[in-house]
Amino acid sequence: MRVLAIDLGGTHATCAVVEDRAILAKTLVPIADHFLLAPILADLAAALRTFDRSLLAGVEGIGFGFCGLVDNVNSRVSSTNGKFIDAVEIDLNEWSRREFVLPLRLENDARLALLGECLAGAGEGETDVVMFTLGTGIGGVAMIDGRPLQGKHGQAGVLGGHTPVTLKGRRCTCGAMGCAESEASGWALPLVCAEWPGFATSSLAARPLDFENLFACAGAGDKTALEIREHCLQVWGSAAVSAIHAFDPELLLYGGGVMKSADVIIPFLQQHVDRNAWTPWGKVRVRAAHLGNDAALFGVISLFQQENSFVR
Amino acid sequence: MRVLAIDLGGTHATCAVVEDRAILAKTLVPIADHFLLAPILADLAAALRTFDRSLLAGVEGIGFGFCGLVDNVNSRVSSTNGKFIDAVEIDLNEWSRREFVLPLRLENDARLALLGECLAGAGEGETDVVMFTLGTGIGGVAMIDGRPLQGKHGQAGVLGGHTPVTLKGRRCTCGAMGCAESEASGWALPLVCAEWPGFATSSLAARPLDFENLFACAGAGDKTALEIREHCLQVWGSAAVSAIHAFDPELLLYGGGVMKSADVIIPFLQQHVDRNAWTPWGKVRVRAAHLGNDAALFGVISLFQQENSFVR
Repeated sequence: MRVLAIDLGGTHATCAVVEDRAILAKTLVPIADHFLLAPILADLAAALRTFDRSLLAGVEGIGFGFCGLVDNVNSRVSSTNGKFIDAVEIDLNEWSRREFVLPLRLENDARLALLGECLAGAGEGETDVVMFTLGTGIGGVAMIDGRPLQGKHGQAGVLGGHTPVTLKGRRCTCGAMGCAESEASGWALPLVCAEWPGFATSSLAARPLDFENLFACAGAGDKTALEIREHCLQVWGSAAVSAIHAFDPELLLYGGGVMKSADVIIPFLQQHVDRNAWTPWGKVRVRAAHLGNDAALFGVISLFQQENSFVR
Repeated sequence: MRVLAIDLGGTHATCAVVEDRAILAKTLVPIADHFLLAPILADLAAALRTFDRSLLAGVEGIGFGFCGLVDNVNSRVSSTNGKFIDAVEIDLNEWSRREFVLPLRLENDARLALLGECLAGAGEGETDVVMFTLGTGIGGVAMIDGRPLQGKHGQAGVLGGHTPVTLKGRRCTCGAMGCAESEASGWALPLVCAEWPGFATSSLAARPLDFENLFACAGAGDKTALEIREHCLQVWGSAAVSAIHAFDPELLLYGGGVMKSADVIIPFLQQHVDRNAWTPWGKVRVRAAHLGNDAALFGVISLFQQENSFVR
């Protein structure tokens, strides 16, 4: 099966031709200046048309990964967080049929990444998986029996970063208190550090507050950095147990920029899950994702293969 | 539709004839002395045979609610917690066909209660619901699109009481740390009180430590009781937000003995959910369950009506 894939991120969109488990061609479309989706659509169409005619032959449809909540049955965006707020008004399927005479399928980008990892990455052959993405925010997406969970309004199984993990935590951007994301994500890290006893005299205080520096200082033995790293690992571990108890997976996958420190994170989480998750049937495996930013592109293949078969 | 229903609890089993939304007959079978299931089966068969012959006419099957994890596709118990440990070895379908020439369907008792409330109780006509039971333990069961969530090993959507809600909590019976159940259930309450600053001089200290007394002392203005009640409400609220973010329901139902104080609990939880849950589509409603211990009996009707249609 050959498809066109569009993965819409915050600063650029990736357009690609994907066939089964291979990306045949890929191009980036910068979109940093745009806060609406409508002005970008012409650029996306132009980018897709730059692909060699031989590559476009036999394409069966367009898969569109969107960074927000989507109604994938009707291929409509249902909710966005700040950027592309006009997307809920746009009929992307109509756009696709008009521009390319091709059907379009819309899905949340994190769900697509999970589908991609399960097709051609670290989750190959797996059917019951939760994938966390540790970065500026925390993504957490659940698949049951090979299909991403959807729920009544398309938001089941897709808010794993917004599981409350502590009773006295800070307010999250989602509105809840003490979410995994508001306790241990890239945007929360400077807030966590600023409140941590002893931070001012830590070696961490002299550096930009990101996870790369946190893990570097902790690795060098800085006491405060070690404490904050332990806090973050505990938060991620707690969200992992919540997800296991909610969705009954056999595999947890971890992607995102923070996974540069996978050598520390994966063994910690495997041990945390072994000790804490209630899984009388056996042990949940913990593994790093493989495909990086290409995961969502591969996911489009699964999206078309699973047509109309989502768990709702 | 007319069925036989068996709801197996810790101290007694309830046997009933149920037709659509009416319980035609009901009898209790004491089982307190038994720690195995096999010796009870003859008593259950005898109890079902005491029903009037006219009631048994037209019965289409037996529904069996079990207090543990079940494989409802194959009608086998998959995991028990201490009691009825022989249940995993018993072929209940074979028993039912031999004794009554009727097909048997097995389901977790909390899932059956949720099905029952959605057929004939507080969730009537609802399809996307999470039901919590606040009692000695905390149950939490999720339904998506009219069907209880199951997962690969039958434990998806059924462990809502075992969502970690705090990073530095006590060890739960399930093995995790800081579960809703280990922070604010009937069995945890004495432990919570014993550690609470000022408990020794509270009016609560003179009474048996149960939720009835906690709410009574708090209602009378006892400062420590008010603090502990607030703690428990926050724990239940956090588990509610976790469940909403995981399962995308439109309705939360609350049952169990603690709901004698529904006048305090339901308004608190409604406000907590309104303020904390991320539901751009609208507001999740919070409601007390109606059917009490009869809920699981009604659930058997749904179990047969939904034959083979579970979300896995």
